[in-house]
Amino acid sequence: MVDESKYELLFKVNSPKDIRDYDTAQLKTLCSEIRQYMVDVISQVGGHFGGGLGTVELTVALHKVFNTPEDQLVWDTGHQAYPHKIITGRRDKLKTIRKFKGISGFLKRSESEYDAFGAGHASTSISAAVGMAEAFKVKGIERKAIAVIGDGAMTGGMAYEAMNNSGVRKSNLIVVLNDNNMSIAPNVWQISNYFTEMISHPEYNKFKGAIWDLTGKLDNFGDRLRRVAARLESGIKAVITPGMLFEALGFRYFGPVNGHNIGQLVKLFEHIKPLNGPILVHAITEKGKGYKPAEGHVQRLHASTPFDKITGQAHKKDGPVAYTKIFGDTLVDIVKENKNVVGITAAMPDGTGLSRLSKEFPKNYYDVGIAEEHAVTFAAGLATQGVKPVVAIYSSFLQRGFDQIIHDVALQKLNVAFILDRAGLVGADGPTHHGTFDLTYLRLIPDIVIMAPKDEAELRNMVYTSVEYNDGPIALRYPRGNALGVKLEEDFGLIPIGKAETLREGTDVAILAIGSMVDYALKSANLLEESGIHASVINMRFVKPLDTDLLDDIHKRFDKIVTIEENSIVGGFGSAILEYYNDNKYKNNILKLGLPDKFVDHGTQTELHKMLGLDPSGIFEKIKMFYLGHKIPKGVVA
Amino acid sequence: MVDESKYELLFKVNSPKDIRDYDTAQLKTLCSEIRQYMVDVISQVGGHFGGGLGTVELTVALHKVFNTPEDQLVWDTGHQAYPHKIITGRRDKLKTIRKFKGISGFLKRSESEYDAFGAGHASTSISAAVGMAEAFKVKGIERKAIAVIGDGAMTGGMAYEAMNNSGVRKSNLIVVLNDNNMSIAPNVWQISNYFTEMISHPEYNKFKGAIWDLTGKLDNFGDRLRRVAARLESGIKAVITPGMLFEALGFRYFGPVNGHNIGQLVKLFEHIKPLNGPILVHAITEKGKGYKPAEGHVQRLHASTPFDKITGQAHKKDGPVAYTKIFGDTLVDIVKENKNVVGITAAMPDGTGLSRLSKEFPKNYYDVGIAEEHAVTFAAGLATQGVKPVVAIYSSFLQRGFDQIIHDVALQKLNVAFILDRAGLVGADGPTHHGTFDLTYLRLIPDIVIMAPKDEAELRNMVYTSVEYNDGPIALRYPRGNALGVKLEEDFGLIPIGKAETLREGTDVAILAIGSMVDYALKSANLLEESGIHASVINMRFVKPLDTDLLDDIHKRFDKIVTIEENSIVGGFGSAILEYYNDNKYKNNILKLGLPDKFVDHGTQTELHKMLGLDPSGIFEKIKMFYLGHKIPKGVVA
Repeated sequence: MVDESKYELLFKVNSPKDIRDYDTAQLKTLCSEIRQYMVDVISQVGGHFGGGLGTVELTVALHKVFNTPEDQLVWDTGHQAYPHKIITGRRDKLKTIRKFKGISGFLKRSESEYDAFGAGHASTSISAAVGMAEAFKVKGIERKAIAVIGDGAMTGGMAYEAMNNSGVRKSNLIVVLNDNNMSIAPNVWQISNYFTEMISHPEYNKFKGAIWDLTGKLDNFGDRLRRVAARLESGIKAVITPGMLFEALGFRYFGPVNGHNIGQLVKLFEHIKPLNGPILVHAITEKGKGYKPAEGHVQRLHASTPFDKITGQAHKKDGPVAYTKIFGDTLVDIVKENKNVVGITAAMPDGTGLSRLSKEFPKNYYDVGIAEEHAVTFAAGLATQGVKPVVAIYSSFLQRGFDQIIHDVALQKLNVAFILDRAGLVGADGPTHHGTFDLTYLRLIPDIVIMAPKDEAELRNMVYTSVEYNDGPIALRYPRGNALGVKLEEDFGLIPIGKAETLREGTDVAILAIGSMVDYALKSANLLEESGIHASVINMRFVKPLDTDLLDDIHKRFDKIVTIEENSIVGGFGSAILEYYNDNKYKNNILKLGLPDKFVDHGTQTELHKMLGLDPSGIFEKIKMFYLGHKIPKGVVA
Repeated sequence: MVDESKYELLFKVNSPKDIRDYDTAQLKTLCSEIRQYMVDVISQVGGHFGGGLGTVELTVALHKVFNTPEDQLVWDTGHQAYPHKIITGRRDKLKTIRKFKGISGFLKRSESEYDAFGAGHASTSISAAVGMAEAFKVKGIERKAIAVIGDGAMTGGMAYEAMNNSGVRKSNLIVVLNDNNMSIAPNVWQISNYFTEMISHPEYNKFKGAIWDLTGKLDNFGDRLRRVAARLESGIKAVITPGMLFEALGFRYFGPVNGHNIGQLVKLFEHIKPLNGPILVHAITEKGKGYKPAEGHVQRLHASTPFDKITGQAHKKDGPVAYTKIFGDTLVDIVKENKNVVGITAAMPDGTGLSRLSKEFPKNYYDVGIAEEHAVTFAAGLATQGVKPVVAIYSSFLQRGFDQIIHDVALQKLNVAFILDRAGLVGADGPTHHGTFDLTYLRLIPDIVIMAPKDEAELRNMVYTSVEYNDGPIALRYPRGNALGVKLEEDFGLIPIGKAETLREGTDVAILAIGSMVDYALKSANLLEESGIHASVINMRFVKPLDTDLLDDIHKRFDKIVTIEENSIVGGFGSAILEYYNDNKYKNNILKLGLPDKFVDHGTQTELHKMLGLDPSGIFEKIKMFYLGHKIPKGVVA
């Protein structure tokens, strides 16, 4: 599907070793071809797109100058790493990106020796690179560790912790700040170009080293001179560059540099390569660079389905609206009536559905940056003053705020509502993004309420319930993707805390389902009916507190009980039922269905559910065997 | 026990309102009396001590100038807040601090309206204060939010996330950096005093405001002028003060100021009180200030038992050595033989037992600051290069690294060993520090190994086993306090992964115990024996993977099975056994003992175990009732 004859160099590059002798003109050609290739392929298969277009020159320059894979190149989250994949032997596999059994959309150590560190969550790269740099010290070998991190990821606390630690230890690492959020006036460019070239020039650093050695011989006075000199260089940088933060953390700052000037980048990296200690290179790039429909449409092409190459318009999809949008609209409806409610996102206004709130009620909206820890405790602070915070964070990202939910919210019994989108298997983003642990990690928290809706109408009422609830923390989780298409009521209904509902009456087996699995349970009940097995289906709604009245009743009426959840079978919803039944000496036969105790790869949600036997027909098969008393073969679902 | 007649003012101060009219001389007297009172009381009853001596003047100045409790004063962790407790109505209760049923050693919202936000874990104060400041905006009321944070806590990523967010939003809050780690040369003091007084003076700020308004009228050119002016002020601060970091994050920096000069502090706070936007006051203080034995002995008096008032020496205690020390010594023994092993602490070298390693093998030791997120991913980075990191973090603090263990370590199957001290109830530090969730939050992670030793000899072998294990992450937890006093073997023994050991054979009931509860299980088995009930006791050793051969055997031989763990009964060790038995259709009677699904207050470990019925006699009573088929009354332990 790609016309190879259009490309002069790209199909000759099978590893970074092939470009180490290229001159600037060749590098420029290669960059332009990588960009063209990305547009060609990704427009057909979909993928995160804008970030990679912005890092073409950075990628090529880094692989040209540094001795990868011996030198360790760590990309912070993978969206920016498509060019890296292309020139590290995965050019031809790009068309399988984010597909079932295809290459990952992120970095992945098992995929290539050039993927030094995998990441789907942001802000991890500097910590990993500091670890690598220190490992080289421990082992006594001379290698470089390089982290490339976006300006968004730089707002994460981990990045700061790592820089601070590295600055104190004087680790030998290079951090490349890939900044596509900063516009720089032309005159500032001139000054900073001049300054960066000056301070990165080998002659300057030789001169500086000589002065350093000289002052080192002057004992105390020399030390003071050195300190004043370092302060002065920092002070100058503070006035004429944006490097103040990094200098304060003990980094030598170089920049800002134009991240699309391949010649300049190569020269800069060659100059700093021999320098020791922590170095920060601040590169200004443009998301979607070189592809008109992507430039300036940061959010639109961040996560991308296949699209028209010329217009950049995504191919149209039909179907019910996404859960995300239902939540976003619901919150706007609530805030319309109640200005005491605020929404909080950690840099995902579109992904969490809060962008409508941000536009219609900006005073009731907070984007705190990629900063889940802060988001949770910030919400706790709001709650102490009687404001009701609704914290919207993906299930897997909220793992970052785990301690804060316990220590700052639950322990103080503060009224914070947590809305977890992307709970369960998320699809193409794969294991870093699957939200498969939240029912377990939330359930261990005392006094928290945990809900999951069976459909969008219930989601709407649960969001309302979570805002009206004033007895401590309350959490609500739902899957990525489209809702079921049921009719929404305009008026809100409160859901009684801890009350389940029976959706289908049967006599042979009771299926207790939660959230996304309620729909599957109903479908598998229909299949069971065709086999002559009459199943009750209960929408449990709450994982904590459980509807114990209903569980008592089920215990009396059914010998065989099935639990289903789209969460790890370890310690989750099914375990809650087991614990309750055991504590009450109930001896029913219980089949616990859920996600296996292992990491699940990427693929569409449908493909993954099928693979794991957690689709309606897989569930049907298992319940049938369970009902008939057959042993279920040891498989992926316990 | 305190001679009130020694004090002129202290016993007249029952709330901060009583000091609002004090002049500087009176404030000085009060400060000196607070200090004297702390030494008098804490030397008798014990408590965290040095931090509070350093914040006497800060505390008095803040309560004098700001309108607490309407203005919200947030202390980052509680060790620095003893003077705050004394002047906010808890003077007479200070002698009960950290005692069972007494006042908390930390801030606690339920204890006083002056405790705006509770905290035992560090770095949360700025997030909470930003939340409060934004809540005042939402509610349209004029109040101040003030966070007081130590230089240690400032290394935590949350603090940075919060400052960054606050800088962007221009929140009205004041951060007081209580810096007891920085020595400042006298001449720097002079310059900075002059500069701080100048820029905090109302006339300067009026003048600056006028210029600001004027340039605001000049459109684009004015904007540029403003930016240059702001840059210049920052640049000057960068050269002559340590304020660069904070200015870069959008804070106005004032300092450094002498944190023990009450007159100067009051003047400064009065000057900045009317200013808007985020402000940082950098106060230099001395830990243990005013009490000779404490000054300069930061670690020794951080966590303190009762001590001699004159010499500062702790009253001697006898008994077996602490688990912490056994671990620390073991790691040193391992590193002696294997230089590929490194120890990592997040600012707790003494608490985790790593200080000996830091002295004997400084190249194999890392203190990354209060930065648990970074600590874990840093370890992952080290592991990618074949270095074996041993990450020593308290159970409750490791909650901060939860996502990193999943996303950076386990998903990439990297060989990192986690050593969790303070697992179970920790005693006087109370609910923020109890390590009661780790078996649950670790158990949900695929492919991780989780161990807990029954005594110090087994701890030693488990540490060795965790270092030798090379098949992914492995974790090990043990309680705070003294070990059992068993003999240690010098040679290491590898413990087979997933293998339990039977310690006592019986025929009536099988007790499956883990970690600290093995000893209690043996003791309760002796009590049971006296009642004619013959119990087997199994030291399970592993929570993951379980010894399924042994569980199968137990299933066949015993109808009645008891699990005991010092972890929440939600989703922990007992649930693992339940899950296994259920998956295999075993129908034994299982009694699951552990910590209740609620937050537990402070007290000694012995007091708390007794209160919860998790001491040997409580366990005995419950097992006896269980064996006799009596219903166990609904109580604290399910």
